[in-house]
Amino acid sequence: MIKAYAAFAAGGELKPFEYDPGPLRPQDVEINVAACGICHSDLSMLDNDWGMTTYPFVPGHEVVGTIASVGGQVSHLKVGDKVGLGWHSGYCMTCSTCLEGDHNLCAGAEGVMLGRHGGFADKVRAQAASVIALPEGLDLATAGPLFCGGITVFNPLVQFGIKPTDKVGVIGIGGLGHMALQFTRAWGCEVTAFTSNAAKKQEALELGAHHSVDSCSQAEIEAMGGQLDLLISTVNVSLDWNAYLNTLKPKGRLHFVGATLEPLDIGVFPLIMAQRSVSGSPVGSPATIAKMLAFAVQHAIKPVVETYRFYQVNDALERLRSGQARYRVVLAQ
Amino acid sequence: MIKAYAAFAAGGELKPFEYDPGPLRPQDVEINVAACGICHSDLSMLDNDWGMTTYPFVPGHEVVGTIASVGGQVSHLKVGDKVGLGWHSGYCMTCSTCLEGDHNLCAGAEGVMLGRHGGFADKVRAQAASVIALPEGLDLATAGPLFCGGITVFNPLVQFGIKPTDKVGVIGIGGLGHMALQFTRAWGCEVTAFTSNAAKKQEALELGAHHSVDSCSQAEIEAMGGQLDLLISTVNVSLDWNAYLNTLKPKGRLHFVGATLEPLDIGVFPLIMAQRSVSGSPVGSPATIAKMLAFAVQHAIKPVVETYRFYQVNDALERLRSGQARYRVVLAQ
Repeated sequence: MIKAYAAFAAGGELKPFEYDPGPLRPQDVEINVAACGICHSDLSMLDNDWGMTTYPFVPGHEVVGTIASVGGQVSHLKVGDKVGLGWHSGYCMTCSTCLEGDHNLCAGAEGVMLGRHGGFADKVRAQAASVIALPEGLDLATAGPLFCGGITVFNPLVQFGIKPTDKVGVIGIGGLGHMALQFTRAWGCEVTAFTSNAAKKQEALELGAHHSVDSCSQAEIEAMGGQLDLLISTVNVSLDWNAYLNTLKPKGRLHFVGATLEPLDIGVFPLIMAQRSVSGSPVGSPATIAKMLAFAVQHAIKPVVETYRFYQVNDALERLRSGQARYRVVLAQ
Repeated sequence: MIKAYAAFAAGGELKPFEYDPGPLRPQDVEINVAACGICHSDLSMLDNDWGMTTYPFVPGHEVVGTIASVGGQVSHLKVGDKVGLGWHSGYCMTCSTCLEGDHNLCAGAEGVMLGRHGGFADKVRAQAASVIALPEGLDLATAGPLFCGGITVFNPLVQFGIKPTDKVGVIGIGGLGHMALQFTRAWGCEVTAFTSNAAKKQEALELGAHHSVDSCSQAEIEAMGGQLDLLISTVNVSLDWNAYLNTLKPKGRLHFVGATLEPLDIGVFPLIMAQRSVSGSPVGSPATIAKMLAFAVQHAIKPVVETYRFYQVNDALERLRSGQARYRVVLAQ
């Protein structure tokens, strides 16, 4: 039996919950969960904001731990290996998207907490291809958030061929944004943080930003006109996107990793006149996650976390809801 | 004196109009206009739809002709050379955008009919860098529309590294769209035309499309789900853009070259889930125009035109307004 924490209704308190995972499939591994980060999407799923949650619902998709057992077909991981698991717990492996290495865009990809049980547990299972070995030197206590928040902001740098000479902006300095500042700084870019939180304007500079801008000040945004090659939005609220478009250079890109629910209301002229793009992306592929982990070790990039014990899970969720966390909440055994 | 046709008020009839261009600047050339295409933006400017027209207004930015005289600093063009001139009549030449070869995105670029007089005339002047020599084999009578409509739909193929293995859609089979079908077919792509005009569904196939889809049929658009790498919109009306987004593959791009005035109202989830992009672009750089002309000769690509004489300019404009033209209206001396 796997000992987990589950919600039994939308927005409900998490309670101890046991389930029998059955026999281990040959392509899967079982992980002893050491720690699991909490992502804003855990709250969205818990609250059924996206209308696709099934209960009992076990959240958790920023898992680090060690391999407890491996299925008969698994040869690249072995018992005791330190590993991580993110949003996806399996891919079809044979569609053109998977075959091109874009497993994270596979239409048949399985979400670790969609119609199955996630990482708020003592153990979790997943297809071995979605489980990534941790490189030497990565800190188990803080690595969890790299597997969803981290890869989500790292992936665009790889996907869009961002160069160290590019100027990058990050909107929202929270769980994702504080890792984006570290990654883009280490990438060699000139980095500007956009935050509505006065305290975070200063903290952003300590995390790697060269400049900090009030994300709600029309004047400060206007002063950034035509300066950025890439602007990553990590927030889930609506901002004045047309004003943000104007902070982009010719050929610049406004890229969404935060799931803003309202439509974007983007004007076509600012796109046409300066050949700008607006785009979005989810987490990354297994290959890109491995690349990110090696880069994090090389540049001493670490999520800044507040750690709770698993039995404190409801306090931890409340802390995330408060918006006060600096910057990612992690559950540890 | 240059003999032109000008409108004296928004939406007004064009009348003969003479102006003195003054001494030829050393960096400029004067062109004897042989023909000039009419673009929908000539109408938009004539009607002051964009609020930036000054009167008397001489339209025309799809010029082909021969060099009449050259300024003292011009060495790469000489009297008698066959040339073309498009939307831009000059660039700053020294900003980072120009220096990177993206002259068409130069913030200081001069529009041939913005605050100066365009190509509905016997002569027109422009900075030599914006005037492109015609390659051997290009037909003067039909080449004009390549210089705005043609380059506008060709440029995205270059800018976004479109490959012959990509699947491309074109929305709107008019002045721009009919050239887009020819270019993308010659590029090696599988091409789908989207048009609301039943007759054009068939014509599109003759122009190069492999498939033709009713642009207003929800069912036909849905049936294209997840199939396209690039979808170019040439229309200036609002369509169900979120439905069109869903015709894109993972990493696909919805690209606007038509100046839709209403905001796009794009959902963020369809962008994030499949790493899609929405973008726009204007005409192309001088280097890309030259590349397009060589490609057009190599693949026997020709705008399909209806030709009027310059003195019939008002009839020609009415023909364009009617939406009946197949596919571009051209004025010839």
